[in-house]
Formats: sequence, structure tokens, C-alpha cells
Amino acid sequence: MNRQSTHVHFETRALEFFARDVFIACGLNREQAAQSAEVMVAADVRGIPSHGIGRLWRYVNGLKTGLMLVDAKPEIVADTPGSLVVDACGGMGFAISVDTMNRIIRKAETNGSAFGCIRDSNHFGIAGYYAMQALEHDMLGIAATNTAALGLPTFGRRVMYGTNPLAFAAPADEERAFVLDMSTTVVTRGKIEVYDRLGKPLPHGWAAGLDGRPTADAHAMIDNLLHRRGGGIFPLGGEGEDSGGYKGYGLAVMVDILCSVLCGAPFGPQVSDTATSSARVSHFFGAIKIGAFREPKAFRRDMDKMLRDLRLSPPAEGAERVYFAGQKEFEHEAGVRKSGVPLFKETVASLEEIARETGVPMPGVKRCD
Amino acid sequence: MNRQSTHVHFETRALEFFARDVFIACGLNREQAAQSAEVMVAADVRGIPSHGIGRLWRYVNGLKTGLMLVDAKPEIVADTPGSLVVDACGGMGFAISVDTMNRIIRKAETNGSAFGCIRDSNHFGIAGYYAMQALEHDMLGIAATNTAALGLPTFGRRVMYGTNPLAFAAPADEERAFVLDMSTTVVTRGKIEVYDRLGKPLPHGWAAGLDGRPTADAHAMIDNLLHRRGGGIFPLGGEGEDSGGYKGYGLAVMVDILCSVLCGAPFGPQVSDTATSSARVSHFFGAIKIGAFREPKAFRRDMDKMLRDLRLSPPAEGAERVYFAGQKEFEHEAGVRKSGVPLFKETVASLEEIARETGVPMPGVKRCD
Repeated sequence: MNRQSTHVHFETRALEFFARDVFIACGLNREQAAQSAEVMVAADVRGIPSHGIGRLWRYVNGLKTGLMLVDAKPEIVADTPGSLVVDACGGMGFAISVDTMNRIIRKAETNGSAFGCIRDSNHFGIAGYYAMQALEHDMLGIAATNTAALGLPTFGRRVMYGTNPLAFAAPADEERAFVLDMSTTVVTRGKIEVYDRLGKPLPHGWAAGLDGRPTADAHAMIDNLLHRRGGGIFPLGGEGEDSGGYKGYGLAVMVDILCSVLCGAPFGPQVSDTATSSARVSHFFGAIKIGAFREPKAFRRDMDKMLRDLRLSPPAEGAERVYFAGQKEFEHEAGVRKSGVPLFKETVASLEEIARETGVPMPGVKRCD
Repeated sequence: MNRQSTHVHFETRALEFFARDVFIACGLNREQAAQSAEVMVAADVRGIPSHGIGRLWRYVNGLKTGLMLVDAKPEIVADTPGSLVVDACGGMGFAISVDTMNRIIRKAETNGSAFGCIRDSNHFGIAGYYAMQALEHDMLGIAATNTAALGLPTFGRRVMYGTNPLAFAAPADEERAFVLDMSTTVVTRGKIEVYDRLGKPLPHGWAAGLDGRPTADAHAMIDNLLHRRGGGIFPLGGEGEDSGGYKGYGLAVMVDILCSVLCGAPFGPQVSDTATSSARVSHFFGAIKIGAFREPKAFRRDMDKMLRDLRLSPPAEGAERVYFAGQKEFEHEAGVRKSGVPLFKETVASLEEIARETGVPMPGVKRCD
């Protein structure tokens, strides 16, 4: 971890411009490139580097090999005052998701609520970004996506769904906002890969081996998952039913229904990364207009009280503070405004390689620590 | 457990008629009484006795003491093509919830989706019942409720939200349906009370003592909870962040926002049972019309495949079968159609006492075992 704990800091805009120019070099049009860069870097700004610019090489690779289509022409498949289904036709997931969520918000403005799906898309970054688009419109925002299958059903040994994140955002007034953005598995694959790299045994209840029972062997688990031999990650709530594993399992399947069955996209174990192709995934978006229920100002005042009560509630023995969902990310954002976006040195090395390959100059460093 | 494992079986209709007549004896009108009885007994039929007729004495007591108002006149507070807010004015929760969900479904029929809240209500039984009302209309159904506060925020030691169950239902064709109905805490209070009664130590990660750290002492935990001294039940995902406790915590707060902040009702620790009064709670309902996204028949066919794949997926070592959400409940229902509703002898004793008090004759026994 020592090597990883040393960061290089960059200005947010500098990272966005770099990623934009890399995407342009890969063939994306300027608008789509800028939008994709912004959503991707927003993950780093919010302190979720697993979904940030550290993934840029994956997108570059996807665009170069044709796994993600540069010139995809999205099609609208269904369009009513309260619903929208878009086929991304294999294009990148970021820009089309921002656009779809904006359309959903406009529909909800007149319809009270609206929902939409995107199918045949690619990884869209952090679900919370899209849910948060609703905030300034005094709406509740919802976003979700399915992912390549790696989650075990309760009592099962074969992966049947992805990490299937679900995000929900609600505006406040003086407090920032409530922003829940969670995978429905106990952990994501990224966390298990970190344990593998460090050679550390996995905590009990995170993942299962071939027999569907808990394993501590991160390396074998990842390898079995890659080759679809059996085993996978447990749902939120862990193994079996005693601590509510069937709830996380149910939530993951719910997300899959909303993202894929609702719009006729592949679901469950059909969604899978292979050696030559990344998973084509599908997304779900929703907006509910607060003004259809009560005066938005009064709603936001009550949200202030709720969020303040939560963050000021007394901590458990040995804990420092209580947070509400999204609070840590907003605090990280505030730190970034002062000190820039901290990137792991490994991430910087991957950007330098991309810079060499594409001829896009590296962004200037703001500070090292 | 031995005493509890001996059951007396009754016909479903006989239990419904008994409960209906008891509610009428308490002053409810015939229609509301019949509707309340049906929803309550549906919990027993689906194998969720914690929410079934074993609670009848609580309602009888509530109605007699005026905690639940017999003659409440509900008021509609907001009503648009896609939204509805109803004030139950302290009345019982069952019938008004069925009616509100029916209105939401009718709105969604023309609007594509619709959502509603009920505030100043009382315990409404199983959330799944209302979500399932959407199934026959080819809609996705959603239902949730807040409850008296007993859940701890991640890193906290004071209860800040209830068990806040969330239900989601999606129709299938040959398979029955996907019906997720889950509390957002690890377990409900009822489960901890069972451990208390049996003098068994609580499993790790279910509940916390005064200091907010895990406790095995069910008795002290329940007593501390009752007197609001500190401690409570952990969110789904357990203590801290390692196994995703912040996700269950976030889901519980999300449910509270939907049920209460959205309609201006009390939330968080303001929702509380006292010695003289049960918690006035609020509910949330939603329906999304599948036909606005794709042909419902095609949706249901895909659901069949998804649910079949899940229940036929290979079990883990030592496990017998994999279930999808709602499957166990549908299987219990099938058993009830053959053998009647199994009630614990303790529950039967409580019904006999109610029968004596109200003069309503006990339902005939179908079978004992």
C-alpha cells in the first residue's frame, strides 16, 4: 500500500482536458469526448478512483479494438411522455447516459415522473453522477446499471448477476444532498483484486470458491471467476440468509430487471466480459418531481434536518463521526478544490503511457505528496 | 422452539372472516374490516407469521385505546396525474394502502408511472402485498414504509431510522413473479425478541449495545431500545463499512425520504413507539407501466427465463436449492391451499382470548400437527 499512498495532484480541468483530447485522438467527436472526460474525472473528484481516470486505458483499448464503437449511432426504441428506451448500439456509456438522464428530467418536469433504459451500452462510470443530475431540478434522481456477472445467488455457486450498482439522490438546502451510490454485492471485484495484489486473505463473507462456500483466497477466486469455473462474490448481506444475504441478492436482480428485462437487453450471466470483448451492459434512469408531492423548499428544509441529525448523531465507541450517504464524497470534493485531484502514482504512469501512444501532452502536475 | 413448532391449521377464509368480524366488533366498517383482515392473513398465507394474524391483538388494543382511530376520515393532500399524497389521519394502515395503491395503478395506466405517499398512518402489514397489486396490470410495483426507529447509522450508537422495509414486484408468465420484500436492517426486532425468549446469544453483527459496538445480549439490547438508552439494530451489511453496512444504512434512509420527507411526515427518530402510543408511520407506493418500455408479453417471457435460470442454478456445497425472491412465499401459499394456514399454538391462544373479549366465535380448526 505504501507505494499507492503517495499521490500526485492535478487540477480537475487539466485532467478533463487531457482525457477529452485522448478520446478525440481515439476518434470520438469533441462534444462526446468532453462529456465522457467530465463524468470519468468526476469519480476521482468524488474520491472513487476505481471509476476514474485510472480506467482511461480500458476505454482507449476498447475504442482501438472496436469493443466500444467510435461511430455508434444510438437509436430511440421507445419514447412516451413518461418513458424512454435508447439503444446505444455499442457506443460508449458516458455521454449517452448524461443525455438520456437530461431527457428523463425534462419528461418528469411535465409528467411528474419518468424512467428510461439504455441497452447495448458500455461502462458508464459512477451511477451517482446521473442520479445527481436531478438535484438542481428539485427532483429525486435514480440511476443503475448491470455489469458483467460476478455475484452469487443465495445458496448458489454460479455467478448470476453483476455488482449492479444503484444510486439515489435527494436534494437538500444548506446540507449538500443525500446521494446513495452502492453496488449490491458485498464488495466489487476491484477490492478483491487489491487483496490479491497484496497477497492478503479475504475477509470472511466476501467471496466464495468453486463450491460456493466462503474462501480467503483472492487469487484463486479471481482466476475461477475469469474462467467461469464457479464461485464469485457474495451479495450484500453475505453468505446464506442469516445476515440478510437474500436481500442483497434480491436488490441485484431488481437492478437487472430495471436495466435489462424492462428494455429487452441481455441479463444475468449473459452479461460477461470475455478475452476479446467487454460486457455490453444496460442502464436504468429515473426522476421523480418533488413538487408533485409538496413544496420543494419545504422538502429541502426537512432534508437539511434529517441530514444534520444524522451527521451529528453520537458516534459508536472507537468511531469518530457518523456520515450520511454522499457526505464523504462531498468532503473529498472540497479537498480537491483546494489541493487538486490526487492520483496514485500507478495511475499517473498509465496516463503517461497513453500520452506517449496518442501524442496528447500530459497535464501539468499541481503538487506531489 | 419445540412448543412453537407445533401448529394448528385453519382455512384461509375462516381466519379472514374471524379477523373481519373482530375488526367490526372494534368499530370498523364492514368494507375496511374485510380488507384489513385479508391483507393481515395474507402474511400468514405467504409464510410471514410475524406480520399475520398473530398481530391481531395489537390492532384490537390500538383500536380500543384510540391509538388507531376507528373513525378516521382520510384526506387527500396532493393529487396530480402522476402523484398522490393521502393523510390517513391516524386510521389503520391496511385498507387505505390497498386503495391508494389501486389509485396509483390507475394513474400509471395513463401516465406511464405514478407514486404516492400516505402519512399519519399505522402499521400496514407486509409491504409485498401492495407491490404485488401491480402484477396483474403488467406493471412493476413498489411499496415501502418507515417504522419506529431501531436502526443504527454506520459508526453511530443512537437509533436514527426503522426497519424500513422495501418491496419490489415484477410479473412473469409461467413462473409466478419476482417479489422482493425486505427490511433494510440486518434483521427485524421480532427476530431479536425470539433470541431473547430462548435466552440465546445474538449472532455477531446483528445488534449493538449502548456503546454502538456488537452485543450478544438480546435481552439488554431490547430493554435499552425500549428505553432509548442507546444501541440498536445494525443496517443490512452489519457494523462499519467493511461488509457494506453503509449500504443498508443508506437504503433505510432512502426509504424514510420516500415515505416521509416526500410528503411532510415525521421521520427518523421522531417515529417512535411509546408506552401509551404506537408509532404513526408513513408509506410509499409506486407503479411503472411495462408497456411504456416494451411489449409486456415479451417482458414476462424474459422474466420466466431469468427466474427459471435462478432457481435451477447449481446450489453451493451443503445447500439444497437456489430460490428467487418471492419463490419461498409462493411455495408456502401452495402448501396452505392444500393444508390450510399453520398457526403457532401461542397465536391460537391469543385469538381465543380475542374471541372471548369480542364475542366473535373462534374459526373451526382444519387440522393439528
